[in-house]
Amino acid sequence: MNVEYTPKAATAAPLQLAQRSANLRSNAIRDMLKVAHQPGMIALGGGNPAKESFPVALMPRLMKDVMRRFSSNALQYCDTQGFPPLRQALADWLAQLQIAATPDNIVVTTGSQNALDLLGKLLIDEQSPVVVEQPTYLGALQAFSLFGPRWRYLDEDEEGPALQKLDALTAPARPGDRAPLVYVMPTFRNPSGKSWSAERTRQAAAVLRRHGNWVVEDDPYRLLTYDTSPSPPLKSSLPEQTIYIGSLSKVFAPGLRLGYCIVPDPLLPWLVKAKQGTDLNTGTLSQALAAEYIQSGRLNDNLPLLRAIYRDKRDALTDALARHLPGSFEFSIPKGGMFLWVKGPPGFDSDHFLSVAIAHGVFFVPGSAFFGDTLSEPMRQENARCMRLNFSGNDTDTLKRAAERLGKALKTCNL
Amino acid sequence: MNVEYTPKAATAAPLQLAQRSANLRSNAIRDMLKVAHQPGMIALGGGNPAKESFPVALMPRLMKDVMRRFSSNALQYCDTQGFPPLRQALADWLAQLQIAATPDNIVVTTGSQNALDLLGKLLIDEQSPVVVEQPTYLGALQAFSLFGPRWRYLDEDEEGPALQKLDALTAPARPGDRAPLVYVMPTFRNPSGKSWSAERTRQAAAVLRRHGNWVVEDDPYRLLTYDTSPSPPLKSSLPEQTIYIGSLSKVFAPGLRLGYCIVPDPLLPWLVKAKQGTDLNTGTLSQALAAEYIQSGRLNDNLPLLRAIYRDKRDALTDALARHLPGSFEFSIPKGGMFLWVKGPPGFDSDHFLSVAIAHGVFFVPGSAFFGDTLSEPMRQENARCMRLNFSGNDTDTLKRAAERLGKALKTCNL
Repeated sequence: MNVEYTPKAATAAPLQLAQRSANLRSNAIRDMLKVAHQPGMIALGGGNPAKESFPVALMPRLMKDVMRRFSSNALQYCDTQGFPPLRQALADWLAQLQIAATPDNIVVTTGSQNALDLLGKLLIDEQSPVVVEQPTYLGALQAFSLFGPRWRYLDEDEEGPALQKLDALTAPARPGDRAPLVYVMPTFRNPSGKSWSAERTRQAAAVLRRHGNWVVEDDPYRLLTYDTSPSPPLKSSLPEQTIYIGSLSKVFAPGLRLGYCIVPDPLLPWLVKAKQGTDLNTGTLSQALAAEYIQSGRLNDNLPLLRAIYRDKRDALTDALARHLPGSFEFSIPKGGMFLWVKGPPGFDSDHFLSVAIAHGVFFVPGSAFFGDTLSEPMRQENARCMRLNFSGNDTDTLKRAAERLGKALKTCNL
Repeated sequence: MNVEYTPKAATAAPLQLAQRSANLRSNAIRDMLKVAHQPGMIALGGGNPAKESFPVALMPRLMKDVMRRFSSNALQYCDTQGFPPLRQALADWLAQLQIAATPDNIVVTTGSQNALDLLGKLLIDEQSPVVVEQPTYLGALQAFSLFGPRWRYLDEDEEGPALQKLDALTAPARPGDRAPLVYVMPTFRNPSGKSWSAERTRQAAAVLRRHGNWVVEDDPYRLLTYDTSPSPPLKSSLPEQTIYIGSLSKVFAPGLRLGYCIVPDPLLPWLVKAKQGTDLNTGTLSQALAAEYIQSGRLNDNLPLLRAIYRDKRDALTDALARHLPGSFEFSIPKGGMFLWVKGPPGFDSDHFLSVAIAHGVFFVPGSAFFGDTLSEPMRQENARCMRLNFSGNDTDTLKRAAERLGKALKTCNL
């Protein structure tokens, strides 16, 4: 064997990546975190839950209860599908919300983002169509984009997706072909705050049933409702085709990284197998803490406080915007969730405005972040007029100041 | 719009999956967990750390310290790259182990499995070659298989990989082509327990530097050393090409799901971007608990106990096997890690024997689990003679009983 040790100057390896990496989309919000840390900057960009909603004082006690109840099992590896006591707790709790689930068809995930990645792996081929609302959740765009889909965009009215377009987009290209994957957020959608009506939900389910699509229903905001009860989930009308994704990030704490799916039987073993290779199992300790938090009734006890906190914040921001934004700007008051979707006059470009806003000490996510590629030029321009403002992550005084700064920044733009 | 609601009997959607799903490998160990739960069964199959090594009694106190130090920040989303106090704690702690890292080139992952998935996404194209040791870690086989690589197998001797074969397998197919990805576990390898010598590590680094490969060094067992100090990591000889993966699962607790990578600069932003879409960030609370556990010195304080526990277990199992296995079986005594690699006589088939062992109340992972496809028939037969026995997850009495049961089961096989 004559491979000699040939000392060479260490040089960086040429950056050789898989072709797939060209599909990697950056997350506009995550990239903005650097800006967020500038002193005095007000961040309306992220989607952080209110820190005052977290049970900080309770945590040591909760850990004590968990160690007494589960001992070392809470620190060990656990089932890929999820820690059984949490799956039981979730099934019981979801039943109170009229959502049918059993410990056997729940898969606990490392936040709902983990669920999106797993579903992308299982359901998206390069160049296969994926039907989404517009605007849609950028975390889904990011997770799915890696697998190279072709994006198809639904139309909508105040009741939900326009059925004719839904029918056209979700039909298999040829009889016998795979029906396109559908990703929707029917309740308090991020970023627009819109929801589907109960009637439209049933009608959409009928269309989707005929075509046999897999449907991903992303539903993290259902319990953050401030004025009304949301419609029943699409999952209830289309259980056999819908993968329902829920999250504990908004109702417990995102730092535990806990999401869950309710999965149709045929897909379940595939999802578990994909999760084995992705992260083996979601953190057992987080799952044990959540099982205890839910089963002790503390999660439900905290919900009225949570809703009161967010209702106040929403009202503070919408009231202040009504005072400070030019009359040519419009937004509807969201009945739930964490976001406001503000639309400027024709010609307004929120990507351009972002740098002006940052100079005034406030930032947001421009509308362009909430779409995949292949958006038609008129749609692109329409969406460039929009900006997403978060109201969950700041206190009410800061939200008022943010609205004031936005107003001042817009005044410099000669709109 | 005339899409009518047409009530139909709910039928399972036809199972339409992405083509990639055909690459999904099941994890032999995870699938065996069902067997593990049969009453009286002794599991030598998994890789569970000893539950008595977990700081159960400390956890409420640790949570209290974390809430005092980080308050709601420990429950919020955090940087995709990792919670900054944990990255700082890891960098300081790794310096004690003579492993160079800074908070800026560490990425915290959701267990090391998450790192493998992210690296597969970034570095493996369908049909691109991936060079591995044989046998190799099945979690890596599982994570990488999804992306459809062609497996290439190194040869080895007692010092480490045979350099001539390494040179041949790691060279780009044509000048200018991407050099193959290399995945190795040079220290107390799972499953064989073998390690590379310091000299061979340097020689291998020289070969790999010449070809410019990306090299994944998976190093979870370095601190579980019972007789000797392991060689310096490959990363030290080849920093610019090596992605070093470490884990807190074996030295703190797997239920926190914490791994980490030390990543060459050019690859780092890509890894972070891939992680954004995969799970946004690793659990903040777990990271805060680990930062406190490391910085308070408790992790280091616990290491002597950990080593004593595992040394006793190793000795118990190896002593008992020496008594109970037929003379035609051989194994070497591992100097670290959690596994024993036992080889039967020519013609012995551990896949077949597994069902006999289960009937005798003990199970293990057969050698066939530790290889990808495209293994030559002689190599396949060679490896079918082997079985992996775990000694970390049971107490010493149980390990003795397990060896006895294996001996009895083998007696029924007429070897």
